[in-house]
Amino acid sequence: MGQLLDGKRLADIRARKLQKQVCELKSLGVQPLFCVINIGDDPSSKIYLKTKKSRANQIGIEQKLFQLPKTIPQQELLKLIKRLNNEKAVNGIMIQLPVPQQINLNEVLAAIDPEKDVDCLTPANIGRLWQGEHFVEPATAHGILALLDYYHITLKGKNAVIIGRSSIVGKPLAALMLERDATVSILHLKTKNLAEYTKRADILVTATGQANLVTAEMIKKDAVIIDVGISRVKGKTVGDVDFAQVAPLSSFITPVPGGVGPLTVESLMEQVVQLTRRNYGK
Amino acid sequence: MGQLLDGKRLADIRARKLQKQVCELKSLGVQPLFCVINIGDDPSSKIYLKTKKSRANQIGIEQKLFQLPKTIPQQELLKLIKRLNNEKAVNGIMIQLPVPQQINLNEVLAAIDPEKDVDCLTPANIGRLWQGEHFVEPATAHGILALLDYYHITLKGKNAVIIGRSSIVGKPLAALMLERDATVSILHLKTKNLAEYTKRADILVTATGQANLVTAEMIKKDAVIIDVGISRVKGKTVGDVDFAQVAPLSSFITPVPGGVGPLTVESLMEQVVQLTRRNYGK
Repeated sequence: MGQLLDGKRLADIRARKLQKQVCELKSLGVQPLFCVINIGDDPSSKIYLKTKKSRANQIGIEQKLFQLPKTIPQQELLKLIKRLNNEKAVNGIMIQLPVPQQINLNEVLAAIDPEKDVDCLTPANIGRLWQGEHFVEPATAHGILALLDYYHITLKGKNAVIIGRSSIVGKPLAALMLERDATVSILHLKTKNLAEYTKRADILVTATGQANLVTAEMIKKDAVIIDVGISRVKGKTVGDVDFAQVAPLSSFITPVPGGVGPLTVESLMEQVVQLTRRNYGK
Repeated sequence: MGQLLDGKRLADIRARKLQKQVCELKSLGVQPLFCVINIGDDPSSKIYLKTKKSRANQIGIEQKLFQLPKTIPQQELLKLIKRLNNEKAVNGIMIQLPVPQQINLNEVLAAIDPEKDVDCLTPANIGRLWQGEHFVEPATAHGILALLDYYHITLKGKNAVIIGRSSIVGKPLAALMLERDATVSILHLKTKNLAEYTKRADILVTATGQANLVTAEMIKKDAVIIDVGISRVKGKTVGDVDFAQVAPLSSFITPVPGGVGPLTVESLMEQVVQLTRRNYGK
């Protein structure tokens, strides 16, 4: 039976360290301020916003919500971002996804000042990630690396296989794992034979939101399994991995919930504090 | 025996198309101007510069060389870039690699206006590449895709394996191949077992500069082999692939020389013209 990678526990440990950093900043008269822009009333966005708010409160970060109507025009949104870019007190800006159809998301993201881009989604920050010289990391990828580090799981020379090529998980994680000398494969919906890759993975990361996608036959013995997926099956929250079958074969495995999820929110707060410190030359 | 992927021939075909585009621009009073900054006297740089110059001449692009002393300070170089950024007539700026030790290359690259970044090496343009919304592509990667297209080799659902994770070939090519729905693996010096990956590659790209790295045992039958490597062995220019052994097993294979090389230079000129047209709203 694989050891559980306890994301909740690690998130709490890291949150305490972060609290201290925030106290230090406050003693210098600096209050980290994190602005979240939410458009419309997506129900899962509401849950994420609540989780963020409570984690921010706990750490001592001020989180300000800009709730915009579903029909907001692109130009209005760009104007708001410009305003927040120019406000010295604002340390982080984030667009809660998804956004409605009329919004050109890439244009909106590119408008965020890279120095305030807590999600690492501006072109310049994505580029820096691939250059191996960056000052902010996407929260989920950052959280996954923190989890691997905490359990002393190294990446150098390992076969890392990532299922999912999203801009918020798969691609940036590939960059960070490559930087740490893993051999990285990126799989996705158009991959013909997932098992061909997953069977050779020393470290398998799955981020599709498709329940039971990863089964026991697809796993190499003693692999490390990181499950980023979230879906609801018969009223229960589950990941992409058939946990009951796969866990006994793995050396380490994340539970869902309680694995990557708590670390994502905590890592986001780390980015806010990181950008705040940077902003003040710390 | 695999069919030869004739890069020289394709480069000539594409150069003729490009000549026409340049003629059209000139008829509108626009002269594409491409500035190359070379620092010191690296002998292979000299050869590359000459090749570029002659291709630029042929196509009708004006190429201006800024030859700087080996000891130039970072600030002087940044000043030159700033000046070229501000000159309306300049359409493309490129730093000839390698640069001497005292130069912080990432800082220099980040100083180039992304709209004049013919090598696609500014953070913002690298980021756009991974976002799937870009207006310039790194020359070698662009040339490789042009070659695959010309021979009707599709990428969707294919296993693409890239040996080499450089900023100018491996990483950007991974982005472009992923965008075209290939399953992409990035291998490098720290990869323990290259063959484990290369044996399953439908399309294998190697860009290491290590002669005879890729041998017959490492190849899947009927694979497409793209050899970006260049080295000198017994006075002969060779690639990374043991051509004599591998060619019979492949379905398509690039010769070295005459494969990717000529397309790289031609693709660079395409980026200059592309940025010139963009600059003039064409």
